[in-house]
Amino acid sequence: MELAEPTIAQAVARCAAAGAQRVVIAPYFLSRGRHVQHDIPELAAEAAAANPGVECIVAEPIGIDSLMAQLIENRVRSAALHGAAIDPAAAAPAVAVAAGSGRGSSSSSSSDAE
Amino acid sequence: MELAEPTIAQAVARCAAAGAQRVVIAPYFLSRGRHVQHDIPELAAEAAAANPGVECIVAEPIGIDSLMAQLIENRVRSAALHGAAIDPAAAAPAVAVAAGSGRGSSSSSSSDAE
Repeated sequence: MELAEPTIAQAVARCAAAGAQRVVIAPYFLSRGRHVQHDIPELAAEAAAANPGVECIVAEPIGIDSLMAQLIENRVRSAALHGAAIDPAAAAPAVAVAAGSGRGSSSSSSSDAE
Repeated sequence: MELAEPTIAQAVARCAAAGAQRVVIAPYFLSRGRHVQHDIPELAAEAAAANPGVECIVAEPIGIDSLMAQLIENRVRSAALHGAAIDPAAAAPAVAVAAGSGRGSSSSSSSDAE
């Protein structure tokens, strides 16, 4: 959000340069978390302050929607038709999981056989 | 994902108890990150191992979709019609932002006027 370009500041400035008087900022987030509640309104306020005469409105996040239900149903149907079953043998043995979490992230150790 | 109930293990066990022979797990994530690529397949493999005779298939995440484009467009239209403009004066002064980031998360200090 703060990293990907165009940033909110850049995008609002471009809209302003193109003559926009009102800019709607639509948060591409599934739910109303910290980014949607605090960070995006703050960045929108900064963008509005930097572009006098341009109104910034923050839209609702994606949220619950029948279109999303339909989209997920499509994913499920497609997986049922074309998806490969997960190999149960790919499950990590419980002992290895416990040993791994006790040692912190040791993914760089190369010959760590147990 | 590991915290919210039902967990993948619980949900697959319920499906198995209800007689399912094939379970599709649909990741409710916008894109193909670590959870979708590693964590969910691993939890699905564990669930498959715990429920012999039940096939687990992991669906694609939400991803790019014309339904999502339509959903976002609806959010933008609704904001344009009913949304309130952000108050530019709500933007945090640059000095306060810099001071805040230098101190780490000090949100518990109650009278921290600058």
